[in-house]
Amino acid sequence: MNSSTRILTGHRPTGPRHIGHLVGTLNTWRELQFTHDCFFLVADLHVLTTQYENPSIIRQNTLEMVMDWLAAGIDPDHATLVLQSALPEHSEMSLLLGMLVPVSRLERVPTYKEQIQQLHLNPSLGLLTYPVLQAADILLYKAETVPVGEDQLPHLELTRELARRFNSLYRPLFPEPEPLLSHQPRLLGIDGRTMHSSYGNAIYLKDTPGETSHKVHQMYTDPTRLHATDPGHVEGNAVFACLDAFHPNRAELEEIKELYRAGTVGDVELKDLLAGILNEALAPLRAKRAELAERPSYLVDLLRAGTDRARPIVQETIEQVRDMMGLTLHNRMGVENTPQGAFC
Amino acid sequence: MNSSTRILTGHRPTGPRHIGHLVGTLNTWRELQFTHDCFFLVADLHVLTTQYENPSIIRQNTLEMVMDWLAAGIDPDHATLVLQSALPEHSEMSLLLGMLVPVSRLERVPTYKEQIQQLHLNPSLGLLTYPVLQAADILLYKAETVPVGEDQLPHLELTRELARRFNSLYRPLFPEPEPLLSHQPRLLGIDGRTMHSSYGNAIYLKDTPGETSHKVHQMYTDPTRLHATDPGHVEGNAVFACLDAFHPNRAELEEIKELYRAGTVGDVELKDLLAGILNEALAPLRAKRAELAERPSYLVDLLRAGTDRARPIVQETIEQVRDMMGLTLHNRMGVENTPQGAFC
Repeated sequence: MNSSTRILTGHRPTGPRHIGHLVGTLNTWRELQFTHDCFFLVADLHVLTTQYENPSIIRQNTLEMVMDWLAAGIDPDHATLVLQSALPEHSEMSLLLGMLVPVSRLERVPTYKEQIQQLHLNPSLGLLTYPVLQAADILLYKAETVPVGEDQLPHLELTRELARRFNSLYRPLFPEPEPLLSHQPRLLGIDGRTMHSSYGNAIYLKDTPGETSHKVHQMYTDPTRLHATDPGHVEGNAVFACLDAFHPNRAELEEIKELYRAGTVGDVELKDLLAGILNEALAPLRAKRAELAERPSYLVDLLRAGTDRARPIVQETIEQVRDMMGLTLHNRMGVENTPQGAFC
Repeated sequence: MNSSTRILTGHRPTGPRHIGHLVGTLNTWRELQFTHDCFFLVADLHVLTTQYENPSIIRQNTLEMVMDWLAAGIDPDHATLVLQSALPEHSEMSLLLGMLVPVSRLERVPTYKEQIQQLHLNPSLGLLTYPVLQAADILLYKAETVPVGEDQLPHLELTRELARRFNSLYRPLFPEPEPLLSHQPRLLGIDGRTMHSSYGNAIYLKDTPGETSHKVHQMYTDPTRLHATDPGHVEGNAVFACLDAFHPNRAELEEIKELYRAGTVGDVELKDLLAGILNEALAPLRAKRAELAERPSYLVDLLRAGTDRARPIVQETIEQVRDMMGLTLHNRMGVENTPQGAFC
């Protein structure tokens, strides 16, 4: 850890991480932890916004996820891992920020509108509150930088609005956090849609080499290509999206793309290549993960230690916020020596 | 205090209490504290749902309100006075319950619709969350009975729904709280509308006898009565609403009503009567209030002691809730001895 620019980011513990998480975020986090003061949040409260009916799965998913984080190179000696639900300050901050944001503003958040449409949801108050809780997470730590995917930019914009609103209503307290956009394009799942745990189209870090190879061979490639000798399309092709992220030799990959466009390389051959590359790239990570799976109490201790490290930080912020908003026992309880005229 | 049926109720600290509060709730609370296990909540978080722009006023309003509660006979030896914002469990419980309630359900809450219409509000997330926070207050204490005015019944119905929903989704934890409806009709303010602090039409417990008399003489009576000799209407008449609540002699009051209906008693005479009765009824309360105003630190100590008494109760509940919903550090952190197969 170091005292440089503070970063807050996290994942919802929805289960094991897939190769899209690795490419999209975990590889970035691994770099950032050496140059920034990183807090990586296990956002288990956020899971409840859509999955409150299966409480028994959340603990298991949390440990699966933390295993993947560590296997991917997140180093608890350099970053702080925090369990969101263990710090009530996250809920409190969310409730207080909720006073400052109109319902109509939240109804316009794109992820909210999309989730309602895609999942045919009758949205809960929790789902509407989702980005406010996320703003609470970020502002509690007074984070200055937030690594985000493009789909999360509107949430960060709301966070910045709330920081400005709080600072101008009361006193300047929060930095306006800056996004750190991932430059990696999103991986496509085996069905050609964005790779997503809940779509059932993901290749998981913990998959065996056999499972990985099997999934790769199920992948959508180019639907317009009927014969191996037809010219193929590289763009929007799940196999090439994956090769772009994992192929160790850029020049060689460009050659393969040319051959594919010319219709001189078949899908099966291409998938064999990808399966081999993936399994080679993931081998060390999988070995580390297998070790971690033998030591669940180590993961638990890690989370406890990180959460303990975060506690004084979020407590200090929430006390400042309560005080500025006219609340707090501390504030109100320390009035004995103030002139009595202040009270009646 | 006693271990009988538990009651949770409260007021938002929006300022000093008026005679409508006395008649509508405080007189009832005073009785209940001797027969029930009463928790009276200073709901300061709820104030922020509409008044977040004036933080400096909240502390003052809290002390004014607690002064009035005690002056009206609330006895801290028999009831527990709790400061909502000092217990983060209220916020946490609200966030967790919010996962279980659809936005569409909250948009149908009558008080929400009314406030938007009446105050021409662009409602905040806090305002939409208002009844969920209220449900959190009640369920945290596992209260069985909630004294409410008729306008609060829809909030209690939501609380009962949330108790049922939680109990059936997870395990039975919460009693379904029963309403204890006030039988006192609402007092009318000096402008003939319901008496309400924010309408500027209230007679406050702390008003001087002179202020009280002045306000009584401003009261709307019967708009259809132009001359003192016209027959008057008793119903919907603010002065008679007030006399109904405060006149010590029912038979005598019925006689006055007859005379008024017959057009043989004038408004001024009637108002002189009411002013005298009010000032006599409020005299002991005002004397006690003046004493309390000299001892702000006593009020602060009281609130601190009550909040400390409530803390273990709400902590126990929130730990049960976290556990049942698949959260908690305690739960997750105590897994060292569980078979490792549970984690991977």
